[in-house]
Amino acid sequence: MSIAERAAMAAVDWGTTRLRIWLLDADGNVLGERRSDEGLMTVGPGPDRFGPVLEAHLGALGAPAGLAAVVCGMAGARQGWVEAPYVSTPASVGAIADGAVAVPGARRPVYILPGVAQRSPDAPDVMRGEETQIAGIARDLAGRERLVCLPGTHSKWVHTKDAAIAGYRTFLTGELFSLLADHSILRDTLGDARRVAPDSPAFRDALLQTLRDPAALSARLFSIRAGGLLNGLSAGDAAATLSGLLIGTEIASATAALDAGDAGSVILLASGPLGALYAKALTLGGITVEIADADGAARAGLLAAARHLGILSHHDRGTA
Amino acid sequence: MSIAERAAMAAVDWGTTRLRIWLLDADGNVLGERRSDEGLMTVGPGPDRFGPVLEAHLGALGAPAGLAAVVCGMAGARQGWVEAPYVSTPASVGAIADGAVAVPGARRPVYILPGVAQRSPDAPDVMRGEETQIAGIARDLAGRERLVCLPGTHSKWVHTKDAAIAGYRTFLTGELFSLLADHSILRDTLGDARRVAPDSPAFRDALLQTLRDPAALSARLFSIRAGGLLNGLSAGDAAATLSGLLIGTEIASATAALDAGDAGSVILLASGPLGALYAKALTLGGITVEIADADGAARAGLLAAARHLGILSHHDRGTA
Repeated sequence: MSIAERAAMAAVDWGTTRLRIWLLDADGNVLGERRSDEGLMTVGPGPDRFGPVLEAHLGALGAPAGLAAVVCGMAGARQGWVEAPYVSTPASVGAIADGAVAVPGARRPVYILPGVAQRSPDAPDVMRGEETQIAGIARDLAGRERLVCLPGTHSKWVHTKDAAIAGYRTFLTGELFSLLADHSILRDTLGDARRVAPDSPAFRDALLQTLRDPAALSARLFSIRAGGLLNGLSAGDAAATLSGLLIGTEIASATAALDAGDAGSVILLASGPLGALYAKALTLGGITVEIADADGAARAGLLAAARHLGILSHHDRGTA
Repeated sequence: MSIAERAAMAAVDWGTTRLRIWLLDADGNVLGERRSDEGLMTVGPGPDRFGPVLEAHLGALGAPAGLAAVVCGMAGARQGWVEAPYVSTPASVGAIADGAVAVPGARRPVYILPGVAQRSPDAPDVMRGEETQIAGIARDLAGRERLVCLPGTHSKWVHTKDAAIAGYRTFLTGELFSLLADHSILRDTLGDARRVAPDSPAFRDALLQTLRDPAALSARLFSIRAGGLLNGLSAGDAAATLSGLLIGTEIASATAALDAGDAGSVILLASGPLGALYAKALTLGGITVEIADADGAARAGLLAAARHLGILSHHDRGTA
């Protein structure tokens, strides 16, 4: 069969800064892929440009007319394509798929999945996109409590009970790293150094120090600057120290804040260099890590939602 | 006597962003004052423009030729007018004044006071300017241990023993507030709100929450964003919450990190709205506060250094 014949759906992860589109067959095999920087920040605000951008990419992939697309991420935000109102915690995989909103007037069936809101007065929180990755690893989460770490600009730590999202916390770790590296007094000390190797001794030292005393983050940031002035701290070690401080604070806080005592090991839903850095950090912290691929989880979650919605194309080979 | 006849010295606080100049008589009374934004960022880097800027202001104040100027702050940094190498902790008032560097080729006697470096491998730290404010309240610090808080862009908490700087920590509190308010995902939530009233309930709540659990800062930042989306958190309350989180983290960390158990109450060396906010925060934290005026302390420290150096003009009425 040709790609057009085999294609069962388009799976779309439309985030703040990135757009990723996969053409999938009915078993979730990848027939084609597109990645671009046309995230919400570029395409939005307002709905006008989402449809044409999606059609251009699907055209390039050879997707047949009428093939359904399922979208997760910021495209469903109020300032996105069509708002898909948040589902509240505790949020099951089924409840998330049931919250899908069909885009009116689109050139093909397009469904946007909702995010998940934690409507706690103490710890209000929102996510859009990560819930679909969680749904994609539902099989690994069945029957027990788990703690899932999704590192990034806004890292999420998700506490699941029997594959439903029970609660979660967001950490500004990646954004704080960029702000401090690019715009703060630490800028001169870090220079152009941004990449941190997982085996960096400076990363390890800062991480372990912070895990022992997570409240001291604020006091330790300026020490990076002073270490550059007084001790000749190199740019690379300064970046590694900053990363260790921020990731250490995140891990200490997340494992303390999320009451998931029975969760056992942490599932790290990540990919690339950041995944390797978090795997090392969690291991240094004495935490057992299971690694799952973030892209694969997003595709699996979008496929599961399409099945739940009954919109896979007729080439669907009939998986329940 | 005319101002020119009464003037005993020019006292200059030359910081990163601000320049303040006072004409003082031999008792420290203010005969004239100039404030400008010609800080190091504007005038430097490099020495060329410092002299002309100082002369222009002293001319406007009617300072006589030959009147000595004593300068503290970033003018003594490597990228400033003339480098005044750091004095190391523990640093006495006398040791700081002894470290003054005369500016070669200046049109009048100009002495730049050194900063103080904490050359600890664990907690390297630097200050330029605050040591002179500490020197200015030496009388209040004599004979015992004290803890002095100097809030600002880079807040300093200084542990003194018999008026010498025993150790200190710098916190990026003010800079983090600006970075997060102006450049982060919280920008939309805060809007133009920057000023925080000391009696704001949102400030109090965030502060007390953070004092109880200082490690949770990183997790709570994103809650401000989510609170705006889910709970209608106002811009003003968002700013107050951010301020409470950051100041609370600073206070918790500073009082824990600085081993100054016998310090008793905290001396708050501050002025203006930020001083009022910190006074409220410390009081909410159950800490007794003594307030000292930061500008007055800077002048007194510069006067004391001039006396120590023996450079007060001949109108000096001979105070020991």
